[in-house]
Amino acid sequence: MTSLMVRPDAARELQDQQVREEIHALFRSRSGRAARYGSHVADLWQAAAECVLGGKLLRPRLLLDALDALRSTGARSNAVQTSAVRIAAAVEMLHYAFLLHDDVIDGDLWRRGRPNLIGTLLSQHGKGNPLPSDRGALTQDRRRLHWARSGAILMGDLLLSEVHQVFAREHLPERIRLRLLDLLDHTITESIAGEHLDVALSDGMITPEFDSVLTMTRLKTASYTFELPLRAAAILAGSTPRTEEVLGDVGTLLGSAFQLQDDLLSTFGEAGDHGKDAYSDLREGKETVIIAHARRTSAWPEVQPHFGNPQLSTADAVVVRHLLGECGAEEFVRSLIADQLTAAHVLATSAESGLPAGVRSFLTTLTAMVEGRRS
Amino acid sequence: MTSLMVRPDAARELQDQQVREEIHALFRSRSGRAARYGSHVADLWQAAAECVLGGKLLRPRLLLDALDALRSTGARSNAVQTSAVRIAAAVEMLHYAFLLHDDVIDGDLWRRGRPNLIGTLLSQHGKGNPLPSDRGALTQDRRRLHWARSGAILMGDLLLSEVHQVFAREHLPERIRLRLLDLLDHTITESIAGEHLDVALSDGMITPEFDSVLTMTRLKTASYTFELPLRAAAILAGSTPRTEEVLGDVGTLLGSAFQLQDDLLSTFGEAGDHGKDAYSDLREGKETVIIAHARRTSAWPEVQPHFGNPQLSTADAVVVRHLLGECGAEEFVRSLIADQLTAAHVLATSAESGLPAGVRSFLTTLTAMVEGRRS
Repeated sequence: MTSLMVRPDAARELQDQQVREEIHALFRSRSGRAARYGSHVADLWQAAAECVLGGKLLRPRLLLDALDALRSTGARSNAVQTSAVRIAAAVEMLHYAFLLHDDVIDGDLWRRGRPNLIGTLLSQHGKGNPLPSDRGALTQDRRRLHWARSGAILMGDLLLSEVHQVFAREHLPERIRLRLLDLLDHTITESIAGEHLDVALSDGMITPEFDSVLTMTRLKTASYTFELPLRAAAILAGSTPRTEEVLGDVGTLLGSAFQLQDDLLSTFGEAGDHGKDAYSDLREGKETVIIAHARRTSAWPEVQPHFGNPQLSTADAVVVRHLLGECGAEEFVRSLIADQLTAAHVLATSAESGLPAGVRSFLTTLTAMVEGRRS
Repeated sequence: MTSLMVRPDAARELQDQQVREEIHALFRSRSGRAARYGSHVADLWQAAAECVLGGKLLRPRLLLDALDALRSTGARSNAVQTSAVRIAAAVEMLHYAFLLHDDVIDGDLWRRGRPNLIGTLLSQHGKGNPLPSDRGALTQDRRRLHWARSGAILMGDLLLSEVHQVFAREHLPERIRLRLLDLLDHTITESIAGEHLDVALSDGMITPEFDSVLTMTRLKTASYTFELPLRAAAILAGSTPRTEEVLGDVGTLLGSAFQLQDDLLSTFGEAGDHGKDAYSDLREGKETVIIAHARRTSAWPEVQPHFGNPQLSTADAVVVRHLLGECGAEEFVRSLIADQLTAAHVLATSAESGLPAGVRSFLTTLTAMVEGRRS
């Protein structure tokens, strides 16, 4: 993800710094107020702040870089830039709010190669601190897990609320503010529909058909990761609805390609490249497009018994990975990514899209960077 | 709760009708958009709409009645009334969003004497519809429960977002809009701090001292149930910050009394009065002020072995209930409620509070109604 950098290092560093300071300020103000409700709430904010500040700022960077490209020919207003940094910080917090509830739903304790908020809260109340035995019927371990998961649900709620507060209060012309609120609404609707579809697939509530899995990928990730920042930039730049629409469509294509790359990395990449357990997708039975394609091939009867087996051995996982490559699933997904990147390029550069040269150039560079990413 | 009615029946009916229509419209617009993402999302909205429309509208009524009282001497604007109905509907949706995540955290499948959203989703995917066996390691029952609980988490997120959208978009003078957003922020901070404290108590993360339990009660329920509607009314009426503050403080007192009454009803009332399993608080080990008081008495060693026992027999529960009465816990909580109602009355009617006669009279009637409630 660090390879997605359109601007020079020094300017990038300054921009990241501004976004981090904004996120930090939001957390500081929130956790300051929370402290009056007791040390547990303060601890929760502290743990969350540490987790969220470890992010790579992909989404804020997209927003601010796109805004730069959109404004390269017009006048630059400092007020808009300040608003954009705050909206960019809020977009990163939305990402984190989604991750928190996603981790609760998936039962995950790790994220980005280290304990997530649930794992952090669990370790804060480790076995070294015995709990009183006269509380309900749950064992101490079950209660610790319940405590940590509940904290993640509630912190997700707080951050989701905070994101809306930022969008709602920004000092912007009403027309712009309402367009941003529409976009936020659209994004949340799509992302949650995607998460819901993901749960439906993994719990076996719907048949894991290829199209459903592809739709899930687009809704759950592409919408808020690429479409939201690019469209928010267009709105903040005062672009026409048509420009906003094109940027959104390019974002959907790039975001889908990006998520498919993630699926490939998780299945075929080295653990060091993506910070996850190398075979966790297989062990968890995650319904990716790779699996959806494999289901349609003659390799499936060999893959199926291992898929979703939490005790899957490394030796068996290597065999499954080989089968997924042999059956054509890897190649199929690579061609799908290539198709989406081509479509993004065509859309960004076509005359009908009518984008200014600076924006075309930005999107072309961005597309090339997604194409070339290694992690 | 139906006994909390300050206005004549016909006017009440019309007002309830307007709020229900507004909630209905919000759900209709949302679920219409959701339908494009597949039948599962549409089903989720449908099930949620049925659950939320079964509420008794306590909070919207408080808001609209208080607004009436605040405006009885001034000019009435239809625009403010329309905004107030929408804000009142959003307050009811906030209540429902909190209930959804509370039910996930508590593992409850029932609410108000019938299946809650989780219970409804479970029954929609009952044992009559076998799930495919090749999905992950969870049993079918575990997957059904996971599906239903995940739906409740996601619907809570959607409703929480919708509440903010309503507050953010209402056509009101900016000053009023920002005051309402401040209030929403304050309310969510307090309610979630209260929920977090509740989890800390029930998981044994903190000692169940009397003051902590009382604070939890105030934060978790009084804040959004009474303080929010009364203060929102003051803001919408264009009242001074001082009037808003007094209404908020009276609301906190009434809301705490109201929740303590609920605890008494759950422990000592008849099941028919409150729509819950008669002994569920005892079986779940719910840390109420009744229990917090009992812990300080010589009766506790006899109560403790039964507290939080999910298999508690009715015969034993009757004994525990008797002990909680005998040890003075019931009487102590009744006197606490009386103190809070007296304080609310004094605050509402004191010269320093400076409330107009109509508002004083409204709050006095409201206090008397809380005092006399039976369910």
